[in-house]
Amino acid sequence: MSENKIPYKIYLSEDEMPRAWYNLRSDMKNKPAPLLNPGTGKPMTAGELEAVFCKELVAQELDGTTAYFEIPQEIRDFYKMYRPSPLVRAYCLEEKLQTPAKIYYKFEGNNTSGSHKLNSAIAQAYYAKKQGLKGVTTETGAGQWGTALSMACGYLGLDCKVFMVKCSYEQKPFRREVMKVYGSSVTPSPSETTAVGRKILAEFPGTSGSLGCAISEAVETAVSTPGYRYVLGSVLNQVMLHQSIIGLESKIALDKYGVKPDIIIGCAGGGSNLGGLIAPFMGEKLRGEADYRFIAVEPASCPSFTRGKYAYDFCDTGMVCPLSKMYTLGSGFMPSADHAGGLRFHGMSSTLSQLYADGYMEAIAVNQTDVFQMAEEFARVEGILPAPESSHAILAAVNEAKKCKETGEAKTILFGLTGTGYFDLVAYEKFHNGEMHSVIPSDEDIAKSLAQLPKVE
Amino acid sequence: MSENKIPYKIYLSEDEMPRAWYNLRSDMKNKPAPLLNPGTGKPMTAGELEAVFCKELVAQELDGTTAYFEIPQEIRDFYKMYRPSPLVRAYCLEEKLQTPAKIYYKFEGNNTSGSHKLNSAIAQAYYAKKQGLKGVTTETGAGQWGTALSMACGYLGLDCKVFMVKCSYEQKPFRREVMKVYGSSVTPSPSETTAVGRKILAEFPGTSGSLGCAISEAVETAVSTPGYRYVLGSVLNQVMLHQSIIGLESKIALDKYGVKPDIIIGCAGGGSNLGGLIAPFMGEKLRGEADYRFIAVEPASCPSFTRGKYAYDFCDTGMVCPLSKMYTLGSGFMPSADHAGGLRFHGMSSTLSQLYADGYMEAIAVNQTDVFQMAEEFARVEGILPAPESSHAILAAVNEAKKCKETGEAKTILFGLTGTGYFDLVAYEKFHNGEMHSVIPSDEDIAKSLAQLPKVE
Repeated sequence: MSENKIPYKIYLSEDEMPRAWYNLRSDMKNKPAPLLNPGTGKPMTAGELEAVFCKELVAQELDGTTAYFEIPQEIRDFYKMYRPSPLVRAYCLEEKLQTPAKIYYKFEGNNTSGSHKLNSAIAQAYYAKKQGLKGVTTETGAGQWGTALSMACGYLGLDCKVFMVKCSYEQKPFRREVMKVYGSSVTPSPSETTAVGRKILAEFPGTSGSLGCAISEAVETAVSTPGYRYVLGSVLNQVMLHQSIIGLESKIALDKYGVKPDIIIGCAGGGSNLGGLIAPFMGEKLRGEADYRFIAVEPASCPSFTRGKYAYDFCDTGMVCPLSKMYTLGSGFMPSADHAGGLRFHGMSSTLSQLYADGYMEAIAVNQTDVFQMAEEFARVEGILPAPESSHAILAAVNEAKKCKETGEAKTILFGLTGTGYFDLVAYEKFHNGEMHSVIPSDEDIAKSLAQLPKVE
Repeated sequence: MSENKIPYKIYLSEDEMPRAWYNLRSDMKNKPAPLLNPGTGKPMTAGELEAVFCKELVAQELDGTTAYFEIPQEIRDFYKMYRPSPLVRAYCLEEKLQTPAKIYYKFEGNNTSGSHKLNSAIAQAYYAKKQGLKGVTTETGAGQWGTALSMACGYLGLDCKVFMVKCSYEQKPFRREVMKVYGSSVTPSPSETTAVGRKILAEFPGTSGSLGCAISEAVETAVSTPGYRYVLGSVLNQVMLHQSIIGLESKIALDKYGVKPDIIIGCAGGGSNLGGLIAPFMGEKLRGEADYRFIAVEPASCPSFTRGKYAYDFCDTGMVCPLSKMYTLGSGFMPSADHAGGLRFHGMSSTLSQLYADGYMEAIAVNQTDVFQMAEEFARVEGILPAPESSHAILAAVNEAKKCKETGEAKTILFGLTGTGYFDLVAYEKFHNGEMHSVIPSDEDIAKSLAQLPKVE
């Protein structure tokens, strides 16, 4: 290794850190389809969206042409507390694999929320504060987003009401407690605090909740409480914009050393990490300045890209949110209860969906047990215990590196290591004990939920 | 803040990272007292120690004169995966406190073990591997050391047998699972696998275990299993040596910016973090090249420096280990069951004990509820959820910064943030729910356990 001048970890200096987010849509010829009002079938207006979301975030959401949005100084100061995240050269993994490939990963787990979600949480909380709001509401499933938002709100002194899917609230008490440390109120969903919660509890008294229900409760609370708005941690264009910090930092770090990746790999749930990581590279590809292979990796148990349909659908199970055109499994789709961790959203970012439909990106689906096997191998070699979500990308990267070993090609692979698995140890324990399965939905199951897609002209 | 040129975080480049550990004893006129054989009352010989510990580690343990030990390349490569740790300028905390003080902390939590323990774990595992051993044994209480050693052994392909205090094994299943991910076997202690374990189980069938018992089981297993040795995560001179990497990196980072700390603060349990952080600064003080105030912060529930006696004592409750001259509360001392987290060892590093006895260092004891209150405030301001242990140092640093506000002095304060509290959320929950207390041992309790000190000529 000694002949190699690239360090194990590349950190940017504060001066090198990006001062603006990059809006990938600005370089897309085919823009992502607009959000539609489910009542009228017409594109959502800024006014309609501002009843639910903060004003400046709505402007970012609807702007498909501005290439760069300056990152406000206050957000850049917050970023400096946990960013730049390291771009890691995986020397130990390369040696273990005996591959000629050069493997890099952008590690977003070095903060208490344990993932990249904090990049958008601080932005959304900042604009809420700037608008003079008292607080925000949101939902959380596995808990990464809720934790990130709690940290951002705790820092800014903004109230934060989190609706946490009841089964997670009970099974992940540590996630719940972290949110409380940062001052958030955490309510198990469904709850008696909202009309929709009371309705669901009356119909299904023993329900353990769902993300869709928690979204509905968070939205209802936001629109019915003066001084509050609703915020969301993935899927939306504004989130892709904030997460572009991941790709921008990666590109600056690689450019410093004259490294150009051949393949860029990210796990894909709602698309926030993948969209952020690939943004500046995809921009170059769209502008014809460079070429890269992009690979989205999704769980075989929730395969929206690889087995879903590109169509307008509701973003939530409760069918109260706007319609988004995306690769979807149907808003009623629920991954198997055996599926651990995140990446369980039935749809996909509309930006990434359009790029995938236009052939700019590949997608693959991988099995859960293979993912955990790889996570464990990675932990022992590279030290970091990865989140289950991130481990989807590790698996795909290692498979590409193994192909290089066969062909002798020294390709450069970049993947996103979105976070740590410190709060996912129940899933790791299941894997050890041989109690974890890879449950793949049947064609019938998917057809059934796709049959419920809304009719859009 | 914009006029200030010091970044939020100072990272050293690989070229700037230390290539040797610093042996603080080499600059001490009064060397720490030698370990004694409890049977003969004579200093332990290398041969005696090598039955339990690895050969090269014994050499490090007994060497009070060599100033620097070169860090082997393999260990430096491992360090590069998670080091340098950031030296953080706590701008946000300073602003919150409105203090003229300049506050820095060295953050050792950015690795999966979540603490500084990994610095010595990889060194000890490396020398065991180099000696051709098959594996190592150890004990763990709260779990930080066991996790760190598991990571190091997983990386080197060395077997690792961890005896985990039974109540922790049951109450901290996540810590246990992390160790298993890295390939360690984890046995709840007391166990049926050792003679001492069987004896204790026969006498106290329902016991939930103790650190002293787990040490005895680990030592017995090491000496009775061919190809195994015992390793320990604190207290020993060799551990202080490896942990000097903390202070060396801190000093290089501060020197780059021409910053000289006035006060250096660390939490103190067995002394591994405190000893490592202060090492190069204390060296300057011993050599008369510079002056610093050093403050050791210990829990009021386990106050070895502030209420213990400087005397020879057993390092373990089971009285099987050598005798060490140190500030001790007596090897039978047990902190209250209300005491959360680490810093529960009855004694203190013999090196630090000698320095304290010679007046080179101050020590204070702080209450647990004050520590958790400060931990929560720190988390909201600086983002990081700190370990309970580390929060002792935060509290002392903030108190010094508040004094600066009163006097108007712009002192520079450096403290050690040894780790994260991600696996300590049961304790945080107790604190939130008002179920946490600060239990201070009575003078009678301490006198009672001190009455059991061994007689040494």
